[in-house]
Amino acid sequence: MTRQEHAPPAADWIAADWGTTNLRIWALGKSGETIAHRSSEKGMGKLAPGEFEPALLELTADLLSEGRRTPVIVCGMAGSRQGWAEAPYLTTPCHPPTIGDATAVTTRDSRLDVHILPGIKQLQPADVMRGEETQIAGFLAAEPGFNGLLCLPGTHTKWVFLDGGRITAFRTFMTGELFALLSGQSVLRHGVSQKEMDPDAFSQAVRDMADEPVRFAADLFGIRAAGLIAGLGPEQARGRLSGLLIGAELAAARKDIASLPVAILGSDGLARTYRSALESLGHSARLLDADTITLQGLTLAHSSYAKVSS
Amino acid sequence: MTRQEHAPPAADWIAADWGTTNLRIWALGKSGETIAHRSSEKGMGKLAPGEFEPALLELTADLLSEGRRTPVIVCGMAGSRQGWAEAPYLTTPCHPPTIGDATAVTTRDSRLDVHILPGIKQLQPADVMRGEETQIAGFLAAEPGFNGLLCLPGTHTKWVFLDGGRITAFRTFMTGELFALLSGQSVLRHGVSQKEMDPDAFSQAVRDMADEPVRFAADLFGIRAAGLIAGLGPEQARGRLSGLLIGAELAAARKDIASLPVAILGSDGLARTYRSALESLGHSARLLDADTITLQGLTLAHSSYAKVSS
Repeated sequence: MTRQEHAPPAADWIAADWGTTNLRIWALGKSGETIAHRSSEKGMGKLAPGEFEPALLELTADLLSEGRRTPVIVCGMAGSRQGWAEAPYLTTPCHPPTIGDATAVTTRDSRLDVHILPGIKQLQPADVMRGEETQIAGFLAAEPGFNGLLCLPGTHTKWVFLDGGRITAFRTFMTGELFALLSGQSVLRHGVSQKEMDPDAFSQAVRDMADEPVRFAADLFGIRAAGLIAGLGPEQARGRLSGLLIGAELAAARKDIASLPVAILGSDGLARTYRSALESLGHSARLLDADTITLQGLTLAHSSYAKVSS
Repeated sequence: MTRQEHAPPAADWIAADWGTTNLRIWALGKSGETIAHRSSEKGMGKLAPGEFEPALLELTADLLSEGRRTPVIVCGMAGSRQGWAEAPYLTTPCHPPTIGDATAVTTRDSRLDVHILPGIKQLQPADVMRGEETQIAGFLAAEPGFNGLLCLPGTHTKWVFLDGGRITAFRTFMTGELFALLSGQSVLRHGVSQKEMDPDAFSQAVRDMADEPVRFAADLFGIRAAGLIAGLGPEQARGRLSGLLIGAELAAARKDIASLPVAILGSDGLARTYRSALESLGHSARLLDADTITLQGLTLAHSSYAKVSS
């Protein structure tokens, strides 16, 4: 078997989700079929400006055609000031970015035609996103009439208000990062399970935050104290910590959650945890597959690219 | 010069403040004068049960008398379950512990007569202290009639309600630990000065939390976003982070702060930061010297020891 026999067909175009920690690419064929889906750990955070093109070629060189510039549509932190090339933010309220908003990147390899989609900023209160806007575009392509709240759980969870196909406002919560720091490195680590969480302790903490959000700062140390003197077990402690953090998020958007439909972009354990938090307060939410929707958003951007360049 | 010529006089008794990270001792003479004040980094967190006595002797061996058991009065985490010997908590509401509440420790060295003072627990909401109760005793010895709020700033700041010489309730906030984790290890580290803080940004953040404490979780990421798109400088970012954290504490005790006198046990930069936060909300507070007061508390316990054993 030679490598040639197993070489994949050339890509019609390539979609790339380039975050702080990972690079994920999809190679698409002429009929929109996925030829290859690959990833590497060469996220924006590990790369100097000159290292982006080689990192992209590592994953895509065998998918490119000689004598043709293959479009590569990129979303995420690669477009930040510290990234490959800055793609200046759009400003809310706005539609998700299209290819017309993208920054074209000059490459040394003439087989590449790279376009980086911009993120979105909100001026008051100050907030930013890079990457999520493309997921939102994918979601709106499937559900153009959705007026409500879209939750994108993650290290930095976003809550996004959508109305008439536009992003009208959004807020970012450091919930995932706080959970990792508090459960792994703070005094709470002594009493918090690193694996399982107790669902009842979780729900109770979510409700405590809804009832009295001002308790948040004191209730964190209360987890440690209850472990020492009130028999709070490690799985309960993990549930309570997660519930306090996610409950503090929900408390901030409580009125809107009560009056608007909520969709959660994700279907993994974290997304289910968010749904469970909403259910603790008597609300419901749909779960959506995040991977599919990111590719949908990049496909949408590519289809407008195809129109422009045809 | 030989060591003998410089040997200190023997101590009448020894006071020890034995926390998680440090051990600090004072050797006192017959008239209450301080003969020696020493410290080491052999805090409870670094020691197995058998290592406490050697760690104490490292700092005190030359202060002990042959043929006499020198009293050593200890407060702090050395009395926790993971410490030298467990000194079971008193329960609020209660007076600060006296020597009658202390746990006597059997030592191998017959020159030592060690007593560990207990901490205090609160059942609802669950909370604990170890070490601060002795500072509170020292404070109450000087001001027995103080009815109000005593703030003990630190890695885990305590707010303590005092009434009629008793500790009626208290709450612990992980503010110092959260500040260190967020400013040193989270995404905020990119924009937060490691040194100076802007006092106006600090005061504004304290007021924001007083007005709308539910914003806390979202406002944390807002510090990063404002650095990226609104020109928030590193010193302003440090002020805002500190102000949000301390402001969230004050918000939880807002009504009581408005109606009760407040004293802050400390006179260093952190204590002044707390006073400045109170001033941002139109309140005032006295600063007290924490070191002096810890020794006062241990001296009080020793004086009752002297009565008991005389």
